[in-house]
Amino acid sequence: VPTTVEIIEAKRDGRELPEDEIRSIVLGFTAGKVPDYQMSAFLMAVYLKGMTTAETVSMTRAMVDSGETLDLSAIPGIKLDKHSTGGVGDKVSLAFVAILAAAGVPVAKMSGRGLGITGGTLDKLESISGFQVELSSQQIVDQVSSIGACICAQTKYIAPADKGIYALRDVTGTVESSSLVASSVMSKKIAGGADTILLDVKYGRGAFMKSYEAARTMALLMRDIGIAHGKQMVVEMSSMDIPLGRAVGNLIEVKEAADFLRNAETDARLKSLIYELAQKAILAVGNSSSAVDLVESGKAWSKFVEIVEAQGGDVRSIERWNDITPAAVVRCTQSGFVTDVDAEIIGRSSNLLGAGRAKKDDSVDHLAGIRIDSPVGQEVETGSILATLYGCTGSTVAQAMAMIESAFRVDNASRAEIRPQFEQVGDALS
Amino acid sequence: VPTTVEIIEAKRDGRELPEDEIRSIVLGFTAGKVPDYQMSAFLMAVYLKGMTTAETVSMTRAMVDSGETLDLSAIPGIKLDKHSTGGVGDKVSLAFVAILAAAGVPVAKMSGRGLGITGGTLDKLESISGFQVELSSQQIVDQVSSIGACICAQTKYIAPADKGIYALRDVTGTVESSSLVASSVMSKKIAGGADTILLDVKYGRGAFMKSYEAARTMALLMRDIGIAHGKQMVVEMSSMDIPLGRAVGNLIEVKEAADFLRNAETDARLKSLIYELAQKAILAVGNSSSAVDLVESGKAWSKFVEIVEAQGGDVRSIERWNDITPAAVVRCTQSGFVTDVDAEIIGRSSNLLGAGRAKKDDSVDHLAGIRIDSPVGQEVETGSILATLYGCTGSTVAQAMAMIESAFRVDNASRAEIRPQFEQVGDALS
Repeated sequence: VPTTVEIIEAKRDGRELPEDEIRSIVLGFTAGKVPDYQMSAFLMAVYLKGMTTAETVSMTRAMVDSGETLDLSAIPGIKLDKHSTGGVGDKVSLAFVAILAAAGVPVAKMSGRGLGITGGTLDKLESISGFQVELSSQQIVDQVSSIGACICAQTKYIAPADKGIYALRDVTGTVESSSLVASSVMSKKIAGGADTILLDVKYGRGAFMKSYEAARTMALLMRDIGIAHGKQMVVEMSSMDIPLGRAVGNLIEVKEAADFLRNAETDARLKSLIYELAQKAILAVGNSSSAVDLVESGKAWSKFVEIVEAQGGDVRSIERWNDITPAAVVRCTQSGFVTDVDAEIIGRSSNLLGAGRAKKDDSVDHLAGIRIDSPVGQEVETGSILATLYGCTGSTVAQAMAMIESAFRVDNASRAEIRPQFEQVGDALS
Repeated sequence: VPTTVEIIEAKRDGRELPEDEIRSIVLGFTAGKVPDYQMSAFLMAVYLKGMTTAETVSMTRAMVDSGETLDLSAIPGIKLDKHSTGGVGDKVSLAFVAILAAAGVPVAKMSGRGLGITGGTLDKLESISGFQVELSSQQIVDQVSSIGACICAQTKYIAPADKGIYALRDVTGTVESSSLVASSVMSKKIAGGADTILLDVKYGRGAFMKSYEAARTMALLMRDIGIAHGKQMVVEMSSMDIPLGRAVGNLIEVKEAADFLRNAETDARLKSLIYELAQKAILAVGNSSSAVDLVESGKAWSKFVEIVEAQGGDVRSIERWNDITPAAVVRCTQSGFVTDVDAEIIGRSSNLLGAGRAKKDDSVDHLAGIRIDSPVGQEVETGSILATLYGCTGSTVAQAMAMIESAFRVDNASRAEIRPQFEQVGDALS
């Protein structure tokens, strides 16, 4: 194996690195033999020169092998995991896991925290009083064996190379590299030990990848990495131009997911996406249950309660939401139809109110967030409430109100002028 | 000023950085506020995206300002410095400084150590018993005031940013960047405080830059940086395809330079280059002395002795060379003319014998080296000595002998077939 400098130079010169060289730099870094400054030069070279699919597979495998792979073999059946590349208002996982577990499909779901404008499932779950996201490997296996599902943080033994590399990428301008993003996501999913992985790859204003083409390239790359590691991959593409559902924040999103599972009236696009993803996953593992039946019969809600209680959470605490006083409302200044709600602006506004984090170590306000009272397609009058704000008070609220107002577009035109992608649900990767 | 990450991202995306952003990262690095891993990501981005001349000037200025600039104002006259981009057998500085000082031109020459196949003037001078290369700023000013010249190491206060950045470049695959090379060289020259800087920019197999075009681009960039800092620049281009002179090593090169100053028979190309550079420099500062007269009259040799003694060296120790037993000789296996001696191979062979260093902290063997007994143009017979080896013994010598033999080409053809550039001396930058 060449020296670390020679490996950096090869990538700098755009050469394709063989697996042993990628392993040498990644595992050397984890072992403390390759210093930060060599890894960051390597990451910048990768950012600017790219990696082939074969290199990205090698990178992923090295990151998986830097730690432990969860052994789910004691659990009978085809084990499932799900990952969303992140969006604004994306609480699909909360309902998805409950539906799958209710169908009898074992789900060992490892989630992340929010960063930037995209929320994180762990932050949302922690808004439930007592909910424990940190489970040991044994606790994960035990809980999935007994009740069929868990939703937890990655253990510290999962892909430690990824943690170190991500921390460096964050401060060296090397975050937005498709190979680095794909290997980071997939190394954690593969080390999570599931047999089947469902990916929901988002594109649009509120997503990490703004264009459909970039998201599709990423989706194909992640799919190929999974297949190269012997995983069954189910990959869906879904639009993230407008917020998903009516709620953006933490507890407010848990409430929306819980209400959906209790058959309350739910935003049509959110409902369709949950059913689409859940049904695809159910079929992929050879199960014949109906996702709709599992929700309508209340079985999915019972399973959700079971999961929350198994992880120490108090389901009744979700109802705290009903007692919270809004910080402000944003009203409409004209009549017409809402033809656009910019997910990126809503995401930034939600962060401003305290629901998200700008840096990894920031804390989040579980009660902060935004309710979209008038979603795309809604007819409004002057004075109609467009959105309700929760969270911090004072001048920040005024700033958030102005931002949120700018996210909405109200036209005198008819519903027919709404851009079709705003009503679109997920599509299988073609 | 943007954050360090934003500056790295701007360079990564190929944007031209304003002076304050470059200063922020360079001076932040020197102050310990910008960590190694951010600087190395920045350096890789600079390597791959390049810098404009304006950015390189800013980078140089920031590196100069990271430390102290030598104040030579107490010394009357136009102060001169000289820099060679490095070659194999390049002992020009040793004679050059003596000639200029003999002409009455004050020379405060700061030199470096050898790295890779190119030797370093400090290593050569330290082969003279007792010679001190470390002088304080005050000692430099005092010695140049009293005897007209010194040849010494950069003080630790000169461009400390360059030292830290160079150490990082060496281990992160970011050495060969024209902007980083030019700013490194020029920051030290500018901080050296001279009014006029003569640059000898080498190209060819034994040089840092292999092609004339790359060397010319570098020469123009270094000239522009000097002019932007108010320096008078004299820039010469010279070929480094074959070794310069007959001696390659440390003490052996000092001996060749000393013999030239004592009017011994000297390799024609070496002699021409010394006179060419010395005369250009003398004229550039408005002096009317003849370089040839200064050598032929013995004045340059006297000045050399004076400089060596002022810095604690024993000139008689140079004659140790006569008592050294060669390790081996390489003989010719055919008759004809020597039509090529590959400088790169000779440089690597010299290192193998112990004369150079592969890493910065390696020590050098002052007595190791190679004498070219049959230079390009020489008529040879089977059994003629091509080269004599000095230094280590054992299997390394056998390896060096084979390498050196491969550096020579002997053809039955006439002298006319020798490539013209091998006989070419320096040319002013056009």
